[in-house]
Amino acid sequence: MRTLYHNWFCPFSRKIRVTLHEKGLDFSMRVENVWERRPEFLALNPACSVPLLQEPDGHRIADNYAITEYLEETYQDQPLMGSTPEERAEVRRLVDWFDSKFHREVGHYLISEKILKRLLRHGSPNSDAIRAASHNIRIHLDYIGYLADRRDWLGGKFFSYADIAAVSHLSVMDYLGAVPWHANESAKNWYMRMKSRPSVRPLLKDVIPGLRPPAHYADLDF
Amino acid sequence: MRTLYHNWFCPFSRKIRVTLHEKGLDFSMRVENVWERRPEFLALNPACSVPLLQEPDGHRIADNYAITEYLEETYQDQPLMGSTPEERAEVRRLVDWFDSKFHREVGHYLISEKILKRLLRHGSPNSDAIRAASHNIRIHLDYIGYLADRRDWLGGKFFSYADIAAVSHLSVMDYLGAVPWHANESAKNWYMRMKSRPSVRPLLKDVIPGLRPPAHYADLDF
Repeated sequence: MRTLYHNWFCPFSRKIRVTLHEKGLDFSMRVENVWERRPEFLALNPACSVPLLQEPDGHRIADNYAITEYLEETYQDQPLMGSTPEERAEVRRLVDWFDSKFHREVGHYLISEKILKRLLRHGSPNSDAIRAASHNIRIHLDYIGYLADRRDWLGGKFFSYADIAAVSHLSVMDYLGAVPWHANESAKNWYMRMKSRPSVRPLLKDVIPGLRPPAHYADLDF
Repeated sequence: MRTLYHNWFCPFSRKIRVTLHEKGLDFSMRVENVWERRPEFLALNPACSVPLLQEPDGHRIADNYAITEYLEETYQDQPLMGSTPEERAEVRRLVDWFDSKFHREVGHYLISEKILKRLLRHGSPNSDAIRAASHNIRIHLDYIGYLADRRDWLGGKFFSYADIAAVSHLSVMDYLGAVPWHANESAKNWYMRMKSRPSVRPLLKDVIPGLRPPAHYADLDF
């Protein structure tokens, strides 16, 4: 059986969960609390990070970037990247936008301050960091709305890893009640379409230990 | 003409410079001080980041991840990723190691504290951040040495993007005199081999405005 080592609030793990669903690949999941630095897990991935994917034949692929590219190369029935080098460059640009820029400017702050500090009982939330994230997320929502107004999907005419990256990062923020959806109607409509996809619905049932989501988190119409 | 928008101390831009050389592609370079947020550059790349590559036909590819994958897909004479999905997954894992983990634990601290604060005349270096980076870089050197002891090149039997990523990040640290080479002989030997490659030599002539490198920076035998 294919196994995904993940954590509930890890946006990068969410990307792989959605991707595996979109590609019709069966998998089981195993929670890995990477901060415990289990020796058995360190032996699987010296970076001690999730996601880590173990394929049915036992071989392992470590980390977001390697896993998404590996799945795209290996399971081509449901392509998620486009068909020309230019299309793929645009999808990858947007994946990087969410994985690097959104995560650095928004996700990293809120996950550290609102989830990790609580889970690890280590310090109290830094209100400056939360304020910065709350400011920055509006700019990202506007960019999503800008793209959604001009394209069928974020990366172009086709559903792609760009949509998967965006929904994976945003859904963790939405779980924290941190997305001001009223601020951008087009971004909200795109997210509504995403929520109704069978690949995304399982995320809406997630429960982060010790932290309940707001009521609208699982609503398809919010 | 192909144009690379870059900055001298940006490790991600260095990756593209080395890659273009390795693939035998001519290019000119243009420095972009991204913190100035030039409207003309924002129009080219809304993330306002380097590297940005403009191809001879005028189309542009933005950001490290999209550019490296685009160059690998488009110019296949000199492959830098391996030939099987498993080989490529291992190369990409290591690229991510340097681009994400090394940059987060070492490069980001030292570039912010030692270069950006000086260039932007904004605050004085944070000695805690510099101390953390100095501690962390030893762990990364040991990992490079571990790989170099077991493989011909960092990613396997072939020169790859793993070596390019490592040398791009490390060479900026070396410019700052921040690499304790004596701490790992195998890592040092690998770096010596890298320095003598025609694709890497141009980096050794770089001058970051206002900041001189240590004498050993450009020495092939240091």
